[in-house]
Amino acid sequence: MSNCLVTGGAGFVGSHLVEELANNGNNVVVLDNFSNGHMKNLSSLHDSNIYRWDVQICHEIDFKHRGKDIIFDQIYHLATAPRSSSLVNPFQDIETNCKGMIAVLELARKHNAKVVFTSNSGIAYNNPKASGSIHEFAPNNPTTPYDTDKLASEYYCKIYHNIYGVKSCIVRFATVYGERQVVNEALNWRPLVATFVKNVMNHEGVIINGDGEQTRDLIYVKDAVQGVVKAMESDVNNADIFLLSTNTETSVNKVYSTVAKTIGHFTPIDYTEPLPGDIKRMRYSYEKAHKTFGFEPKYTLNDGIERMIKFLRAQTEYTNS
Amino acid sequence: MSNCLVTGGAGFVGSHLVEELANNGNNVVVLDNFSNGHMKNLSSLHDSNIYRWDVQICHEIDFKHRGKDIIFDQIYHLATAPRSSSLVNPFQDIETNCKGMIAVLELARKHNAKVVFTSNSGIAYNNPKASGSIHEFAPNNPTTPYDTDKLASEYYCKIYHNIYGVKSCIVRFATVYGERQVVNEALNWRPLVATFVKNVMNHEGVIINGDGEQTRDLIYVKDAVQGVVKAMESDVNNADIFLLSTNTETSVNKVYSTVAKTIGHFTPIDYTEPLPGDIKRMRYSYEKAHKTFGFEPKYTLNDGIERMIKFLRAQTEYTNS
Repeated sequence: MSNCLVTGGAGFVGSHLVEELANNGNNVVVLDNFSNGHMKNLSSLHDSNIYRWDVQICHEIDFKHRGKDIIFDQIYHLATAPRSSSLVNPFQDIETNCKGMIAVLELARKHNAKVVFTSNSGIAYNNPKASGSIHEFAPNNPTTPYDTDKLASEYYCKIYHNIYGVKSCIVRFATVYGERQVVNEALNWRPLVATFVKNVMNHEGVIINGDGEQTRDLIYVKDAVQGVVKAMESDVNNADIFLLSTNTETSVNKVYSTVAKTIGHFTPIDYTEPLPGDIKRMRYSYEKAHKTFGFEPKYTLNDGIERMIKFLRAQTEYTNS
Repeated sequence: MSNCLVTGGAGFVGSHLVEELANNGNNVVVLDNFSNGHMKNLSSLHDSNIYRWDVQICHEIDFKHRGKDIIFDQIYHLATAPRSSSLVNPFQDIETNCKGMIAVLELARKHNAKVVFTSNSGIAYNNPKASGSIHEFAPNNPTTPYDTDKLASEYYCKIYHNIYGVKSCIVRFATVYGERQVVNEALNWRPLVATFVKNVMNHEGVIINGDGEQTRDLIYVKDAVQGVVKAMESDVNNADIFLLSTNTETSVNKVYSTVAKTIGHFTPIDYTEPLPGDIKRMRYSYEKAHKTFGFEPKYTLNDGIERMIKFLRAQTEYTNS
């Protein structure tokens, strides 16, 4: 049994990870400012294990369990400001992503904990004309402040390892989707699959930025969680970087049609200007994560979308009954 | 005549740049929080041209000249938190260096001004065992939060150019020295040459971190200013990066003996542990800056150190008379 801290634990990926860690018998503490997290995602957790603070002050918090200081063994750092709002509010992105990472590393240093940091696969250069997969060694090409701040955070991990010996492992997620992922207009957070599912289920049209032929490597949330836990359990401690992905690319248009087919009806598509800094092609190799700690995605896009829709329909029936 | 803003203009390099720009007939405005700047460095400037604010809010300041808004043509962004304190206070480093850069780019966007950003040559990987010069294309290898934040700032420049068309040119300074450079213990700011000069002139011993065989590429402040002005006048607008250096490396031990010889006496040396993240070898090629906008350093290390000591002796005589 480990003492685990999950930053951003009330959010989408975070809450799935919390469930997994708790199911495995660990003592799980969540830190979340609830800007995009929800208490209802943490129904399995006791209130005293939930800390409502910004991540960038986490090194100053006294974490207690029944009046005694908790010493964390594992820190899963998932709290983030979203890519979609980083051009609108680059200062907030720096605050949450850069300062948040330093705070987590300072906390890990104090607790002698290992950190798994969920970074961003969009950092890597992707050539829209090339085919084949992108690897961890692709040159860096951040196209938004978010990408830049995630890259800076990766460097902070390396520096804290080299100078202070803080153990960490970095995972770069492809595009994660699944149950509980929400659209948050206030944060400009409109995850692709969740937005399509929400709109089509509500019989509303969808907006596609650009021609919809840009591709995504879509990883189901339970696969992402599997990778994060394996990264923590691995003996990688030197801030090395691993892509967690499916090595499969799907166009945004194809994602829409898969969602619409699964739900059973189609709604209108409004094609607009491409987003600034948008990523054209996403297909990431997970070979390194597979070889190093046995990561292997289990769910196809069809599986994942079916599970999401089943979950939402069950919720709706429950709400309506 | 241009309207020029110099952030960090009350500091060491900044004040030399302000002098040069004012001598060339430009309208010069200084923004400085005076954490390491001094009013006495700005004797040539009217008080109404000096704004005492943190750089990270510069995009929110109403800059006025005789009651009318100033529209800047040129922004020289020199304000920085020092490398030496970035491990002690990485949060402040992010605040000043990352947020400061975004604020400058937002200001440039509003004014349609060109930015010259003074970055950091320490970003580049330097192999202690290799000989030869380091170029702009050397792989990135930030070893402190400061390096990381300067690298992030370079990426912000590129992103603001790609997305908003903000014009910028990035220069990476080698180790700058010269008159008015000060030791600031509160900021852990102990520039190599200035510290040696101060201690030896005061008949005090010096501390050398490590064995003193680590090398520096030392550029005299007037050469650095020459490069910055040429970068601004060039037609480089796409956030391209240029090293401003001398392509000459000098060991820390040799710097000490040059200072002591020029002053005329030697004081004891106390060798201590190497600093974390310290740079082992510095010899940077300025070929790209030379070819692109005619940069060429004019002062040798002996010239520069002699000028510094002459300046300090004149000051001391003035103070004592």
